[in-house]
This record gives sequence, structure tokens and C-alpha cells, in this order.
Amino acid sequence: MTHAQQMLETHPRTVSVEAGALLACIDACFDCAQSCTACADACLGEDDVGMLIRCIRTCQDCSDVCIATGRILSRQTEFVPELARAIVEACAQACRVCGEECERHADHHEHCRVCAEACRRCEEACEEILSTLAA
Amino acid sequence: MTHAQQMLETHPRTVSVEAGALLACIDACFDCAQSCTACADACLGEDDVGMLIRCIRTCQDCSDVCIATGRILSRQTEFVPELARAIVEACAQACRVCGEECERHADHHEHCRVCAEACRRCEEACEEILSTLAA
Amino acid sequence: MTHAQQMLETHPRTVSVEAGALLACIDACFDCAQSCTACADACLGEDDVGMLIRCIRTCQDCSDVCIATGRILSRQTEFVPELARAIVEACAQACRVCGEECERHADHHEHCRVCAEACRRCEEACEEILSTLAA
Amino acid sequence: MTHAQQMLETHPRTVSVEAGALLACIDACFDCAQSCTACADACLGEDDVGMLIRCIRTCQDCSDVCIATGRILSRQTEFVPELARAIVEACAQACRVCGEECERHADHHEHCRVCAEACRRCEEACEEILSTLAA
Repeated sequence: MTHAQQMLETHPRTVSVEAGALLACIDACFDCAQSCTACADACLGEDDVGMLIRCIRTCQDCSDVCIATGRILSRQTEFVPELARAIVEACAQACRVCGEECERHADHHEHCRVCAEACRRCEEACEEILSTLAA
Repeated sequence: MTHAQQMLETHPRTVSVEAGALLACIDACFDCAQSCTACADACLGEDDVGMLIRCIRTCQDCSDVCIATGRILSRQTEFVPELARAIVEACAQACRVCGEECERHADHHEHCRVCAEACRRCEEACEEILSTLAA
Repeated sequence: MTHAQQMLETHPRTVSVEAGALLACIDACFDCAQSCTACADACLGEDDVGMLIRCIRTCQDCSDVCIATGRILSRQTEFVPELARAIVEACAQACRVCGEECERHADHHEHCRVCAEACRRCEEACEEILSTLAA
Repeated sequence: MTHAQQMLETHPRTVSVEAGALLACIDACFDCAQSCTACADACLGEDDVGMLIRCIRTCQDCSDVCIATGRILSRQTEFVPELARAIVEACAQACRVCGEECERHADHHEHCRVCAEACRRCEEACEEILSTLAA
């Protein structure tokens, strides 16, 4: 059992979103934040960095949004659904844009292929949360 | 002239949003992130902390979203309008929710009054950006 | 194989720290950042929140330092050992202070017990990195 | 009077560091975080990006450390001097490394000159704090 799961199960308040979907999304957000930070940096170390400018940019943005989203979803006290919805929508969007850009370089750079995978997983986890949060 | 303004004026790429609105929003995001971190902490130090739980929560969320938004708007290379729009919408929402909550405690706690002001300014700066970004 | 591990193995530059210790520390930093954010929030939702003020404070600080450290260690391009050393030292310190505080509440709050565990693991991973980085 | 100053003056607890030095450092941290994010991005948009790899790297690290430091110094409740010292030392180090690197490109890129200035100001503000915090 991960620390994140134990933290959620020992929280004193009622968890506001289905626990499985929430855990998957928290985990995917921190994982994607790490992959995107690493991918922006790996791109920066490549000889063809000039071809990877947009990839570096979208990875940096995606990492920032994922950190904010992972933290906000980690909080269950006085949960505000409309705020959660807005940041999870932004996160899904950032993951989509970044995943598509990384995918374009997946044949040349393995780190872009891996990062695209992390982005897609996070985008799907965000969509799952959005389907359970009232509009 | 602030460092933020100088950074924007010396950027090699064409800036994608009207410069005045962009600068105001970048500045408001970092300012609001600081105020919200400080207000959550000041609330935590109050004798009536039990009345301020929701305020602490919304301040923490707002600070996280403001940091992400301030950073993303600080980047002009390969700007992605739809990603900017999504995070600025989330930021406006976080500032609205947090500003309203802080406002409720403004009569009892000066730091909540000041933080509500920072939130409102940031919310307005976000709305200004949104009015210039295509949907 | 985790995304973090794949990202490290596909990085174009030579990794500057022993890979196993580096991966363990990156993973522990993001994990501890999540646990600390969740523990600060869980404490905030407890009836005896007044007893947990210092715990909330140290969890917030520890989360912030862990995010910065996890990101910096995720970057291998133009690695600067003295900067890595300084932030990893700060992270070890934050984890020690926070872990000790959480431990004090471990008998009353399971989330504090779990968070103390995440802090200790991160502190140890930081110490391991420090032992391999030249002073 | 800035929001940061008002937040500090309305805080319920005794401020642990000389208020003028503390405010200057909080302000410099958020300002430097913004400049470094913007400079990394401006470098990424330059034709000679290949010459700026180390500059981009140090700017990203410096921005991350400055955010963590600015937030931690913004908290006065249950202030922990040894934790503050560790993160401010890391911040001074990050600003020194980044400021020196930006300075090397100041003749070719105005944004590097401005960012070097923001880094130096933040490094000095950190040193000022360190001189007042017991070792």
C-alpha cells in the first residue's frame, strides 16, 4: 500500500471523490510532473535541441500544472468541487497538449515516448475525476 | 521598471498577449501566491483557528494555482493559447473562491482583509487576460 | 519499471550521481511532498487541530522543499554538484524536523505515523545522495 | 505598502527575523523566481539556444528554490530557525550559481543581464537573513 493510499484512508474527513479514481489521479499527477521535468531537461541535453523547443515548453507548463493539481487533490478538508474541477480541467488540457507534442518526438527520443505515456495516463486519470465531479 | 517588465521587453519572441495585461497578471499571480501562503499561515496562528479551516484550505489551493499560472504566463516561447486559457480560468476560479472566503473573516482578521484584496486583484487580472485570449 | 527510472535511463547525458541512489531520492522527494501536503490537510481536519499547529507548519515547509529537490534532482543536463548538495541538505533537514514532529502525534493520528515514515525514508535517501556528492 | 508588508504586519505571531530583512528576502525570492522562469524561457527562444543550455538549467533550479524559500519565509507560525537557515543557504547558493551564469551572457542577451541582477539582489537578501539567524 502506497503512502498516498494510506494518507487517504486515514484522513479524518469524508473523501469527496471516489477513492480509487482520486488516488490514481494524485499518483498520476506527481508522476507526470516528474516525467515532464525530466523530459524538458533531457530534451535540453540533446544535440537537436533546436527541434525540441516546443516540447521543452509544454513539458515545463505541464509539470507546473500537475504539481498544483496533485497537491489540491491531496487535500480533502473543506473540499471545493468547482475549484477542483477547474484545476483538473487545466491539468487534462496540459497533459493532452504535452502528450501530443512528446508523441511527435517519440521515434527519435525514448524519453519523449516515456513522457508521452505519463501524460496520457495523467490525462485519463483527470478525465475520470471530471466524470465524477458535478459540473 | 520592474524585473518582470524588463524580462518581457527583452524577450526574443513576439509576446502573445497584450503586454500590459500580461504583466499585470504575472505580477498579481506571484503577489497573490505570497499573500495566500502568508494568510493560511496567519490563520494557523490565530486563537480561533477552528473558525478558519476553510480559509486555510482555500488559501493553500489558491497559492498553488497562482504559482503555476504566474510561471506559465511568464513563458512566451511557443505559447499555447488553449493551455494558457485553461490555467488562467482555474486561477480566476481559485481567486474568486478564496477571496470570498477571506472576505468573510475580514472584520475579524486584517490579514484576511488584505488577502481578499490580493485575490480580487488577481481574479480581475485573470479575467482581463481571458477577454483577450481567443476561446 | 517506473517512469522515473525510464526517464533516467533514456537521458542523453551522463548521470552525475549513482543511478540507484538518485532514483530512490527523486521518488522519495515526490512521495514525501505528497504525504506532507496530505498530512497538513488531514491535521487541519482534526478536532484537536490546536495541538497540530507545528505539525501543519513543518509539513507545509517539507512539502515545498521536497518539490524543489525532486525537480532539481530530476535534471541531469549541466548538473551543478554544489547546488544539488545545498538543496539536498535543506531537504534532509526539512524531513528530519517534520518527521520528528509527525512522530510526536503518531499515537493519536495514523496520518502522522504514515507521514513520519515518508519523511524518514526521504531523509535517508537525501543522506545517501549527500554521501556520494563531493563536499 | 505592499501586500507582503501588510501580511507581515497583521500576522498574529511574533515575527522571528528582523522584519525589514525578512520582507526584502520574501520579495526578492518571488521576484527572482519570476525572472528565472522568464529567462530560461527567453533563452529557449534565442537562435543561439545551444550556447545557453547551462543558463536554462541554472535558471530552472534557481526558480524552484526561490519559490520554496519565498513560501517558507512567508510563514511565521511555529517558525523553525534551522530549517529556515538550510533553505535560505540553498537559495543563496542557487542565486550565486545562476547569477554568475547569466552574467556570462549579459553582453549578448539583455534578459540574462536583468536576470543576473534579480539573482544578485536575492543572493544578498538571503545573506542578510543568514547573518541574523543563529547558526
